Amino acid sequence: MPVSLKAVAQAIGARLHGVDDIEDALVLEGVAPLDRANARQLGFMAHDRYLPALAHTQAAAVILDARHLKACPVPALVCANPHLAFARAAALLHPDPSPEPGVHASAVVSPLAMIHPSVSIGPQCVVAADVQLAAGVVLGPGCILGEGVHIGEDTRLLARVTVGAGVRIGRRGLLHPGSVIGSEGFGFARDGEAWIRVPQLGTVMIGDDVEVGANTTIDRGALEDTVIEDGVKLDNLIQVGHNVHIGAHSALAGCVGIAGSARIGRHCAIGGGAGIAGHLEITDGVTVTGMTMVSRSITEPGVYSSGVPFAPAREWNRNLAHLRRLDRLARRVGSLEAHLSPRGGADDPVAESTTQAKESQLGRDEHT
Amino acid sequence: MPVSLKAVAQAIGARLHGVDDIEDALVLEGVAPLDRANARQLGFMAHDRYLPALAHTQAAAVILDARHLKACPVPALVCANPHLAFARAAALLHPDPSPEPGVHASAVVSPLAMIHPSVSIGPQCVVAADVQLAAGVVLGPGCILGEGVHIGEDTRLLARVTVGAGVRIGRRGLLHPGSVIGSEGFGFARDGEAWIRVPQLGTVMIGDDVEVGANTTIDRGALEDTVIEDGVKLDNLIQVGHNVHIGAHSALAGCVGIAGSARIGRHCAIGGGAGIAGHLEITDGVTVTGMTMVSRSITEPGVYSSGVPFAPAREWNRNLAHLRRLDRLARRVGSLEAHLSPRGGADDPVAESTTQAKESQLGRDEHT
Amino acid sequence: MPVSLKAVAQAIGARLHGVDDIEDALVLEGVAPLDRANARQLGFMAHDRYLPALAHTQAAAVILDARHLKACPVPALVCANPHLAFARAAALLHPDPSPEPGVHASAVVSPLAMIHPSVSIGPQCVVAADVQLAAGVVLGPGCILGEGVHIGEDTRLLARVTVGAGVRIGRRGLLHPGSVIGSEGFGFARDGEAWIRVPQLGTVMIGDDVEVGANTTIDRGALEDTVIEDGVKLDNLIQVGHNVHIGAHSALAGCVGIAGSARIGRHCAIGGGAGIAGHLEITDGVTVTGMTMVSRSITEPGVYSSGVPFAPAREWNRNLAHLRRLDRLARRVGSLEAHLSPRGGADDPVAESTTQAKESQLGRDEHT
Repeated sequence: MPVSLKAVAQAIGARLHGVDDIEDALVLEGVAPLDRANARQLGFMAHDRYLPALAHTQAAAVILDARHLKACPVPALVCANPHLAFARAAALLHPDPSPEPGVHASAVVSPLAMIHPSVSIGPQCVVAADVQLAAGVVLGPGCILGEGVHIGEDTRLLARVTVGAGVRIGRRGLLHPGSVIGSEGFGFARDGEAWIRVPQLGTVMIGDDVEVGANTTIDRGALEDTVIEDGVKLDNLIQVGHNVHIGAHSALAGCVGIAGSARIGRHCAIGGGAGIAGHLEITDGVTVTGMTMVSRSITEPGVYSSGVPFAPAREWNRNLAHLRRLDRLARRVGSLEAHLSPRGGADDPVAESTTQAKESQLGRDEHT
Repeated sequence: MPVSLKAVAQAIGARLHGVDDIEDALVLEGVAPLDRANARQLGFMAHDRYLPALAHTQAAAVILDARHLKACPVPALVCANPHLAFARAAALLHPDPSPEPGVHASAVVSPLAMIHPSVSIGPQCVVAADVQLAAGVVLGPGCILGEGVHIGEDTRLLARVTVGAGVRIGRRGLLHPGSVIGSEGFGFARDGEAWIRVPQLGTVMIGDDVEVGANTTIDRGALEDTVIEDGVKLDNLIQVGHNVHIGAHSALAGCVGIAGSARIGRHCAIGGGAGIAGHLEITDGVTVTGMTMVSRSITEPGVYSSGVPFAPAREWNRNLAHLRRLDRLARRVGSLEAHLSPRGGADDPVAESTTQAKESQLGRDEHT
Repeated sequence: MPVSLKAVAQAIGARLHGVDDIEDALVLEGVAPLDRANARQLGFMAHDRYLPALAHTQAAAVILDARHLKACPVPALVCANPHLAFARAAALLHPDPSPEPGVHASAVVSPLAMIHPSVSIGPQCVVAADVQLAAGVVLGPGCILGEGVHIGEDTRLLARVTVGAGVRIGRRGLLHPGSVIGSEGFGFARDGEAWIRVPQLGTVMIGDDVEVGANTTIDRGALEDTVIEDGVKLDNLIQVGHNVHIGAHSALAGCVGIAGSARIGRHCAIGGGAGIAGHLEITDGVTVTGMTMVSRSITEPGVYSSGVPFAPAREWNRNLAHLRRLDRLARRVGSLEAHLSPRGGADDPVAESTTQAKESQLGRDEHT
């Protein structure tokens, strides 16, 4: 969608630099990387490593912060947060497609569903009784909505999203293909050698501005509800167990698994492939790095890790062999210390480390 | 579904306590958490931590075991396993919806499929030739069944389940949205620099009372079949490779990956995010904790782990630096021992640990 | 599909041994495991552990290499690479089903799509405007293709595959059920406490002979494209982030996660459950073993690992307690060395390991 440079600057709250009367009238047709943008496209500069690209860019204009202004050979849109400004400019120049309102002839929609006239329902959708779809909702092809699902204004289900009975989704949400919201939780009671299913009677409550990635699954609660607060962003292939609660504006990368009844705070960032055990609580403002195992509650904001970076296999295997005997190695060190300690004094580092060995002993117990 | 308190007690095999003539006639309308249940709802008490909630509950009655009876201010249903009794009561009071028998007009069903009159086939389903659906089978919206699929009595495919040609599924199964049964296994032969697909000619055989979670995938066998025995419970986003065999009543939590030809025994419990390598065997009664890597066979029942719990990132990184040099650290300890051993005697702990260092050397080889 | 033994031998480039005039006329009806093959079926022998099965096989003939020829009691097809020959013979005897050309009545196909007459489009498919489907393309039931998707000759989408707008897929590809190609990448800019979506304007370019596993997701690029080169094989439940580039003939096992803008070289093999961080590069010919975390670039071909094999939980927990205090253990060793070093000389192993301790200090920094 063509928009004038001036209008873009205004919309993203940037100051225009290096623009004469002709350029002021420039119409932008899209965004592009610095090194590929043409004279109708807008570039952006978010990191010093793009300085060489900036020097040779042929973009119509570049979004950047003030300290890169001097290096910019073309008109500049100067702002404090170029990444955010770029996100807004790109959304303006490349608006999401807005399909025609109406229900495709191949969709199967219950006469008991309440559907705002501005809603678009794509081919092969299935909408059950008592579903409520607010203004501007878009269901792409192949979406399936169970009984009593409510979806707020301007939320879009891109394609082939399945939403179970009773689930509520807020406004301006974006649900990617293959995601499943409101599948049954994994709850069983032992009956001798068999497992008996515990009916999963809760639902899923999703706030405003939530994104759910492709093939991500969110289970309904067992008795209470699974809750995803406003502004949460879930990447692809994430598993959210029953009764999980995710606080506002937390972002979770791909392949994260969250077991039942875990509570994640607000403004958390969970790295790809991390695993979060059930029935624990992560406080607000926690960052968990990729492939970390969160096996107990985290009560202080901060960064937490347990991912192990790769090494050449031969080297790693040597270290592994020792890791599997670390208890013995520690005891060997203890033996050495005992051997030497008669000669040590009160402030002997060896004596001190014997104390540490005892603490270590305690540390061991907390894991057993 | 309203059921009398008396009937519930009978159905779950519980003794009624503290019930006068009026309460005996009570009709229950559902289950709810202790702290939210109203005078028509049934609560349950599975753990001492709910004692405060029990004290103030307004539930019609509470399922509990005998030792909590005194603390219960309302009628009680006393039984040995409250969790199991609750599962049964909840199933009685909240029965699964049973859609009308019949084939939805939008479904595409082969005239060569054999479908019991009690079967319900939802909108947008596709049922190929030679499919056999037994009494009480329910296909929710958007399910796709390939040629020759057989499904046993009362099995339900909730929505958008894909079942490949020739797959057989037993009775009373429950398959969640997005699951894929009978996808092709990942089998290739090298041809110079390219990979040539090995046709996957087996199928998937699933027993009775099996659950398959949302977006879980189960590959067909290469030459023989992939087998899931009776009572197995698979959570969401699990990958089951070709020729895998999972023994009866094993339960696998979300995000587990099982490589081809692994055999998992009966009554195993596999924690979330665990990875199981191919061509190995796990015996009956094994518990694998979350995020553990099973890289060789397990021949003894018991609990096995390799997940690493998180630490603050700064602390973890310090430890990691040493983990990556553990071989050197062990050699430094060896040097210290060698330095001291001339002074040691036959039963010197330092000499003993030198022997351990040699064993450790062997341990290293088994990993190379 | 019945094929004569002679024709099979010719097609796979094998020499026939032990065949008289009658056997030469033998017609094969399929392949089977050595111990189950009947007189119309072809077996194969890829490993010494099948020698007992070979001795008793009743197969019509067996594919094997020359060194197993003597042990073969039935006619043999001798070749250098029995696994590859078997893959070819199996494909010949069990050809993929080729559905009738044409568009199923229940499919919704844009009149603006360009579809070769030989294409087969199954029930419940949705094909948007400007889609181009080349000769021999097969869309199984429930596939959804967005605007402007191009698919090359003989590529098959088995069922319920979702392909986003603008995605291009090469020839002879195989896409398994539930896979999602061209979902939006996970890109957000911070706006105070909220996340603002960065429009994802690139697409996905997939080469020839690529396989995509069930429920695998491949995100479109942010500004440039996500690229999957020729011959790449992706197993089930893999996440490929935006702007990722995977080089030709690389194979990735199930449950791998690849963060945005990672580049994987040609002929790489990535084990199941491995995690690959964003903005890094893995050179050609790299093998990453299962559950390994690739957190920085790999510049040399070879095998890399960080997966930790299981141990009995009690033993593992003991080692874990020490792992969490490894820094202290190393300092204890350092103290012992300092205690002893006054007595050591220039070539004292203890002095040398003090140097190593300093290197270790550096190693620590690179992780902070």
